[in-house]
Amino acid sequence: MTDSADTPAQGRSELPGAPVVGMVGAGQLARMTCQAAIGLGIGFRILAAAADESAAQVWAGTQLADYRSLPDLRAFAAGCDVLTFDHEQVPGAHLAALEQAGVRVRPGPAALRLTQDKLVMRERLTDLGIACPRFAPVTGLAAVQEFAAGSWPVVLKAVSGGYDGKGVWVCESVARAAEVLSRGAGLAFLAEEYVEFSRELAVLAACSPHRQGAVYPVVQTVQRDGICREVIAPAPGLAPGRAAQAAELALRLAAELGVTGLLAVELFETPAGLLVNELAMRPHNCGHWTIEGARTSQFEQHLRAVLDLPLGSPALAAPGAAMANVLGGDDGDIYDRYIHVMAADPGVRVHMYGKPVRPGRKIGHVTVTGDRDHRDPAELTDRARRAASYLRWGKEDGE
Amino acid sequence: MTDSADTPAQGRSELPGAPVVGMVGAGQLARMTCQAAIGLGIGFRILAAAADESAAQVWAGTQLADYRSLPDLRAFAAGCDVLTFDHEQVPGAHLAALEQAGVRVRPGPAALRLTQDKLVMRERLTDLGIACPRFAPVTGLAAVQEFAAGSWPVVLKAVSGGYDGKGVWVCESVARAAEVLSRGAGLAFLAEEYVEFSRELAVLAACSPHRQGAVYPVVQTVQRDGICREVIAPAPGLAPGRAAQAAELALRLAAELGVTGLLAVELFETPAGLLVNELAMRPHNCGHWTIEGARTSQFEQHLRAVLDLPLGSPALAAPGAAMANVLGGDDGDIYDRYIHVMAADPGVRVHMYGKPVRPGRKIGHVTVTGDRDHRDPAELTDRARRAASYLRWGKEDGE
Repeated sequence: MTDSADTPAQGRSELPGAPVVGMVGAGQLARMTCQAAIGLGIGFRILAAAADESAAQVWAGTQLADYRSLPDLRAFAAGCDVLTFDHEQVPGAHLAALEQAGVRVRPGPAALRLTQDKLVMRERLTDLGIACPRFAPVTGLAAVQEFAAGSWPVVLKAVSGGYDGKGVWVCESVARAAEVLSRGAGLAFLAEEYVEFSRELAVLAACSPHRQGAVYPVVQTVQRDGICREVIAPAPGLAPGRAAQAAELALRLAAELGVTGLLAVELFETPAGLLVNELAMRPHNCGHWTIEGARTSQFEQHLRAVLDLPLGSPALAAPGAAMANVLGGDDGDIYDRYIHVMAADPGVRVHMYGKPVRPGRKIGHVTVTGDRDHRDPAELTDRARRAASYLRWGKEDGE
Repeated sequence: MTDSADTPAQGRSELPGAPVVGMVGAGQLARMTCQAAIGLGIGFRILAAAADESAAQVWAGTQLADYRSLPDLRAFAAGCDVLTFDHEQVPGAHLAALEQAGVRVRPGPAALRLTQDKLVMRERLTDLGIACPRFAPVTGLAAVQEFAAGSWPVVLKAVSGGYDGKGVWVCESVARAAEVLSRGAGLAFLAEEYVEFSRELAVLAACSPHRQGAVYPVVQTVQRDGICREVIAPAPGLAPGRAAQAAELALRLAAELGVTGLLAVELFETPAGLLVNELAMRPHNCGHWTIEGARTSQFEQHLRAVLDLPLGSPALAAPGAAMANVLGGDDGDIYDRYIHVMAADPGVRVHMYGKPVRPGRKIGHVTVTGDRDHRDPAELTDRARRAASYLRWGKEDGE
């Protein structure tokens, strides 16, 4: 384990022999990982771009640096035993260079590359025989039209990155597709069939270097305008066979792709079965409910996995849980609304990310867990949705 | 709300309009309060004596200063909207001076003084007609002998502070009492009857400036050598009438003593009824189980109370919970034991405080919560005890 003399006291645990995990990125995922690191008593460091980022505000072991700079990454990694990430933006070549230099990069660069290149990811899934929406790389409008074959909408996705904070566009018409391609000039795109799903599901697995695996209960997710709005755990009315199928899929993918840490698999449920929509290899919005709703939070699980500690129980800690994201509204004075939200429902757990309020931006989430007498998923979801909506606007969305 | 221009970005929440709570003291109670502050998204600052203290290791908003210095306290308070404490060591005169200068000190100096002077506290409780062990101030051995009236053991307590990290001594004989008094020369003592209790209980209440109150379920505590070793929630087999009596007692005391924030009441249960043993006005060891076992952790509850936010639900989040403290053993290499503890019981939640291991010192705790199929308090306690013992020694105490 690293024990360099120039390590500052702050951010370094006193727990004798405890390793240091370095997380690149200081968003809300890193912020909530801080809560888990406090409990475990391990060393934890964050590489942040600015001191006012979500996790940097709170964490003593924060280093300001540029994740796009290999020297910065090397310097950060020198103080850590394991390197992990709260986003997918670190250049793949840098990750490979770090690994070659002996840094424990988790998940490995080969696995991370799949989350950085949607085309490579889909090709890999296809090779593995895993059901995905039909897709094709497209280099211009003619290719999109050929892919659509007259059947719209078609989904366009940026292979890497995107613009306006988006990487996915549902195109109802050829005109809309043309607009997306032209505004994204310079980006590589792929086209995907628009899946008429019954609902969206997600499954979260953790895998350690020793290949221990643990899978959380399958959840239902509700997205609007491409943003996750609600998560219901476990997914209501999911056939046991399908839940088992999703769990097996997640563990198989984690093994085949060599994931160390968390793997989030976003799924479409259709009458014909499950299709894989997206993958992420880090703590994920679909797992925020685990802080209160599972025996082990996804954030602690990720730390345990990348440290090769035995994984914690992913079992439900309550009969059910509902999470709703808090989005920024027009009125930035959120704190004033705490009184109403907390007085209205003393069972709501509020998680704010310390991010400046901007309309539509995820600035927090709320979780409601059930008990013996209150376990109806619709009731839990309604309570979570009401609290989140109130924090945003003071009224339900759509009112 | 404070909004001074010289406030550093770190430790200051971006949540618009959110207040800043300052906590004097940087032990494990402050450390676990950091986890709650992250979720609430409020500003949180810690006054620490050294950068390697438990909470200072992790928290960006840490200021190094001396809690015995009024100028240091004033400077710290200037950046905070509310001042609260993780220990009882701040001189009472300083607290009064801060309050007079307009600082919101919570709990108030008058209430805190009771936890700083055991004689004043007992006199106050007696005035309120609350049952306590029989007591008397003693100024020498003759007074102790007169108090004992031939019936030993007698308990000697330092009115404030103590020595060797202790403030309570059970004296089996006059010779032992003489030794305690002579080693504590200069300290004021009181003598207390030695209560033959059936067991020890504790009840934790929160009270806000608007006098909203919330009480956690009554717990059973197990102390050895004057150190809390285990807490079982709820207290097994407690008569409903007695549980209600304890809850009413806590709320009444919080109201009568003007407590804002948490009030922990340690009780002796005897065949004749409940006796009040000790009070604390801060997060307390008897409430660590609430992190996983209650809807709202005691740390979040304390923040909500001192901020005059509506209190969270203190209800059980599981059918039961058991907490065991991890004490330092002879072998400091705790982290090596994580693998065994976590592999043996994936449901154990580990909380380490980042404190150097010294024999007998509290360096962490573990919590096990029950579920529908595993709710036997003895089983939960056994699992917690085993994990804590393993982290200490690799074997059960007493083996």
